[in-house]
Amino acid sequence: MRAPTPAGRHRVVIVGGGFGGLETVKGLAGAPVEITLIDRRNHHLFQPLLYQVATASLATSEIAWPIRALVRDRPEVTTLLATVVGVDAQARQVRLEDGSAVAYDTLVLATGARHAYFGHDEWEPFALGLKTIEDATTIRRRILMAFENAERETDPVRQAALLTFVIVGAGPTGVELAGTIAELARHTLPPEFRNIDTGEARVVLIEAGPRVLAGYPDRLSDYARRSLEKLGVEVELGRAVSEVTAETVTFGEQRLAARTVLWAAGVMASPAAEWLGAPADGAGRLKVEPDLTVPGQPEVFAVGDTVTVAGPDGKPAPGIAPAAKQEGRYAAAVIKARLLGAAPPSPFRYRHPGSLAQIGKRRAVIDFGWIRLTGALAWWLWGIAHIYFLIGVRTRLSVALSWLWIHTRNQRGARLITQGRSSATKPPSTMG
Amino acid sequence: MRAPTPAGRHRVVIVGGGFGGLETVKGLAGAPVEITLIDRRNHHLFQPLLYQVATASLATSEIAWPIRALVRDRPEVTTLLATVVGVDAQARQVRLEDGSAVAYDTLVLATGARHAYFGHDEWEPFALGLKTIEDATTIRRRILMAFENAERETDPVRQAALLTFVIVGAGPTGVELAGTIAELARHTLPPEFRNIDTGEARVVLIEAGPRVLAGYPDRLSDYARRSLEKLGVEVELGRAVSEVTAETVTFGEQRLAARTVLWAAGVMASPAAEWLGAPADGAGRLKVEPDLTVPGQPEVFAVGDTVTVAGPDGKPAPGIAPAAKQEGRYAAAVIKARLLGAAPPSPFRYRHPGSLAQIGKRRAVIDFGWIRLTGALAWWLWGIAHIYFLIGVRTRLSVALSWLWIHTRNQRGARLITQGRSSATKPPSTMG
Repeated sequence: MRAPTPAGRHRVVIVGGGFGGLETVKGLAGAPVEITLIDRRNHHLFQPLLYQVATASLATSEIAWPIRALVRDRPEVTTLLATVVGVDAQARQVRLEDGSAVAYDTLVLATGARHAYFGHDEWEPFALGLKTIEDATTIRRRILMAFENAERETDPVRQAALLTFVIVGAGPTGVELAGTIAELARHTLPPEFRNIDTGEARVVLIEAGPRVLAGYPDRLSDYARRSLEKLGVEVELGRAVSEVTAETVTFGEQRLAARTVLWAAGVMASPAAEWLGAPADGAGRLKVEPDLTVPGQPEVFAVGDTVTVAGPDGKPAPGIAPAAKQEGRYAAAVIKARLLGAAPPSPFRYRHPGSLAQIGKRRAVIDFGWIRLTGALAWWLWGIAHIYFLIGVRTRLSVALSWLWIHTRNQRGARLITQGRSSATKPPSTMG
Repeated sequence: MRAPTPAGRHRVVIVGGGFGGLETVKGLAGAPVEITLIDRRNHHLFQPLLYQVATASLATSEIAWPIRALVRDRPEVTTLLATVVGVDAQARQVRLEDGSAVAYDTLVLATGARHAYFGHDEWEPFALGLKTIEDATTIRRRILMAFENAERETDPVRQAALLTFVIVGAGPTGVELAGTIAELARHTLPPEFRNIDTGEARVVLIEAGPRVLAGYPDRLSDYARRSLEKLGVEVELGRAVSEVTAETVTFGEQRLAARTVLWAAGVMASPAAEWLGAPADGAGRLKVEPDLTVPGQPEVFAVGDTVTVAGPDGKPAPGIAPAAKQEGRYAAAVIKARLLGAAPPSPFRYRHPGSLAQIGKRRAVIDFGWIRLTGALAWWLWGIAHIYFLIGVRTRLSVALSWLWIHTRNQRGARLITQGRSSATKPPSTMG
């Protein structure tokens, strides 16, 4: 189905256009290769700001770019919008959903992870995860519709359930979601509703572990918890969620009536390990050799959230963008060295650039190891860092503009309740 | 269900948060009224630029604003996200989909129009209309997926059908869609595809009448046609479409294989006339008294696309934003005069401010009556006028930024293929 590869060119197939896959493409610039970059979506997503789409702060197009556009100046790269369903390691082919296959000489799996429910997949319809643009607009619709429905609800018990937002998991995503929902309710929405006080909405952050932002030093965790509480977030630590239904969340001995539950408690790697029949850890992440190849398959690399590698402290490197980028860059270096007959690079070593998390307006925590920051200064650095890592000047200006309006006027520019369907179908029901 | 109205306050219910409805709200500022503004969507939409969302030029949030946010400073206005299904003129109530009702002393119907298929509703799944944000993102997905599928298609006949885009109807929307799709194909996409030349895509604009932009003077129509042809659009005049299927469009004697068909050929008013049992024209538009009230129901006004009023030349006023705004403002003036016991304003007279249409990059036609412009100057005026009429400084800056990038770099910032569903469901199939 695809155009034939020029004779002799080494064929690199990269599955996944996230941070790991794109960085591999970048690292292979100038190498004597033909690259096929396969993703089941047409866009690269800046996941660190996805929670801001879910909370109506940013527009979808501010954090997503067509993958094709990102590699337009690389004629040796062919972008394929397709869903990979397996790998035929013997034949050196990846299999696509439509039954066709793409042959490789070298394969790089950068297939990421999905949110996971620890064996409770039945919670998925009620506890919304956040990994894709569609996840984010679904969460945005659910949050905004909860306020709309509460405005029309006359039964106080049902109204309270509509105005209760539960976030499960107090890692960076959970903390950022909780803080932003609290601000939406307390600062943006109050002047617009006539029958309810949106400022009285409950935002409950539930964490099974003993503290929020478990990966951070104690002092920053404490600061984050106190900052959330100042924003009016109820932080519930040390109790795991045992049940989620359409109307309730149960944790410890407590059952909470809540109509909006967001899931930020765990991820599961893509099925790359299954495709290869290769060893994986409990979260489905491939265990790889020190050069990021799959054991016994030196022509197959794996990078990003679908893989587990040791960090400097012996613990696994975190599932964040810098790790995926470093791994992608490393895999490209190994491939290049092999093709040029050069000495292989020394084994991959993850270098942690620092941890950043925003906690509502003008507060953040930053841990660079050698320095730890909180408060407004941390927030500015957080903002500058994120704008820096966005792609393209237009997006940077646009996001800066959106943030300026949020922070000076409490206006959030992307408060749209939309469905993916054509308007031939009915708009969302407004009843609870 | 709603909060009780303070005793004695005159209750105005406005159905529809488009240009007509919002202008009525504005015109009623300071009047001794309680206003309930009902819309089945949470956002006001700047329809004149909706085609730019459909063609990936603008983001959805750049042309849509939460209705609540627009009236936040008007405590006497309650916004209701709800679908109206009828009017009980005897009881003076509008009926909502959920079975409840809202009582009015004065009712303003500003319920707009939908695209219509002239008795061929079976064409709707194949000939996509453009009235809502969801329509626009659906069209955007269809256009972008056509290129994606063509890139993977090996059968040249099917590939050609995928690369054929048909727009039915050469009014402003049809002309603007055709011009922008041609530019997308010829200027934005070519460097990004490896197996197809997107510049060879056919864009066919079919019009039953003898010329494009029928409402414009002949000279401007001719200019528009020639400009479209320069962009590579095939303009087919004087033949009506007689059949649309999933794979073909038939017009006159010709049958064209095309996988993407857009419908810009006609609209039908909302069922407001049916709700009232009142007289309407062939397109379902209410025939109203000179003061915009419904015959025999002086407490019911109708404004915007759901109504037909005579223009200065005796022909009906066009279904454009300025007409809806003038009507909304007029209805508010009549309501105010009644409440204050003042003399009623003189009968409504539509004043045509001018017609503007963009024809691709740096070309437009403008007809102010006293002056007619074409070319780059018209395009600049077109752009300035549209930015002026957007709501809010942030949106204006953001749209200006998006246009700057399109016009200096051929980059379109909103090329996302998204579904409205959560990612638990599969992404769009990539097979044709």
